[in-house]
Amino acid sequence: MLGYLTTDAVVEPGVLQQALRHVADRTFNAITVDGECSTNDCVFALASGASGVAIARHDDPRLIEPMIAVAGHLAREIVRGGEGATKLVTIRVTGARSDADAWLAARTIANSPLVKTAIHGGDPNWGRLVAAAGRSGADFVLDRASVSIGDVPVFVAGVPHDDRAPAAAAVLAHPAVTVTVDLGTGGTADATMWTCDFSAEYVRINAEYRT
Amino acid sequence: MLGYLTTDAVVEPGVLQQALRHVADRTFNAITVDGECSTNDCVFALASGASGVAIARHDDPRLIEPMIAVAGHLAREIVRGGEGATKLVTIRVTGARSDADAWLAARTIANSPLVKTAIHGGDPNWGRLVAAAGRSGADFVLDRASVSIGDVPVFVAGVPHDDRAPAAAAVLAHPAVTVTVDLGTGGTADATMWTCDFSAEYVRINAEYRT
Repeated sequence: MLGYLTTDAVVEPGVLQQALRHVADRTFNAITVDGECSTNDCVFALASGASGVAIARHDDPRLIEPMIAVAGHLAREIVRGGEGATKLVTIRVTGARSDADAWLAARTIANSPLVKTAIHGGDPNWGRLVAAAGRSGADFVLDRASVSIGDVPVFVAGVPHDDRAPAAAAVLAHPAVTVTVDLGTGGTADATMWTCDFSAEYVRINAEYRT
Repeated sequence: MLGYLTTDAVVEPGVLQQALRHVADRTFNAITVDGECSTNDCVFALASGASGVAIARHDDPRLIEPMIAVAGHLAREIVRGGEGATKLVTIRVTGARSDADAWLAARTIANSPLVKTAIHGGDPNWGRLVAAAGRSGADFVLDRASVSIGDVPVFVAGVPHDDRAPAAAAVLAHPAVTVTVDLGTGGTADATMWTCDFSAEYVRINAEYRT
């Protein structure tokens, strides 16, 4: 993957680099297909200065917001194009004690083969989501943890709501799905990652591909 | 998974606990199917004392060697029984700077979907093995790294030996395969894990299974 972002703003290289790091961490570094990396995955930002509009701070919203919008779109297209992918899945983790914990839980859930196959099968399996969060190493309080599929709460403060499984399964039938897991620590840190479902076609493509 | 080991040796609980920890780290904690854990995975050891043979040290080979043999057999049977598994794969990492690095690289390789699908497809894809070791976070020196499939070296000190691909593919046709990756640091630490290949059947089983 090689990504290029261009702007006609006037931005010093150091400021643009800082902005790109901030943007990449919330876009290209927040996606996964199978957890694998390519040695040449790289994203660049270039500023021509042609507009004459000077940007002095890396977090100036005039710079950062359009960068996140473009990079986020490109990053999500990578996930949509994942081998055998049929769904774009947004994994949102809330209620984490720290940013590091939020990312750890989000990354573990987003790479979990059992979560990804359940979503492929349209199964609102809160148990696999809770198990992935629990084994991630992030602080996790089961009695206060919650899981929603789209806006359907299937597990609330440690209690399963399996009567809502049909409504949650209906959400999972869509090509784009958001899953929210609250770690129940009472913390306010959160993280959002994008992943895809895991299909038999993934295995076929990667087992039959020869170097 | 619930595992039980019994012995008729006379062993104090503290010593047996220490022995079990040592054994579990090299057997039950050294296997993976898909990186997922069950909340009730647990292994117990019980000593009756019936033989009258006293064991005072946790590393007494009369205790530890048969425990490793039995626990290792049970652990590998779990991998063989993994969803959709057709092969038992031994991942051996050598040339690591530290034990922690050796385990980190072995675990990353053993859980890599691209490695596991390549092995399923019978593809001696050294690039995926090297890429998994490289992204693991362990110290890794590409120019000195090597990969063997069984006893066929397919990548030696940073140089691909693709003329050996047919011989390596023949090794991969067997139901039990050993893959060795040397991290090339010149270190002497090593680690051995057991995993299985990744088949379309894995996806079918886990996508269609409903809670």
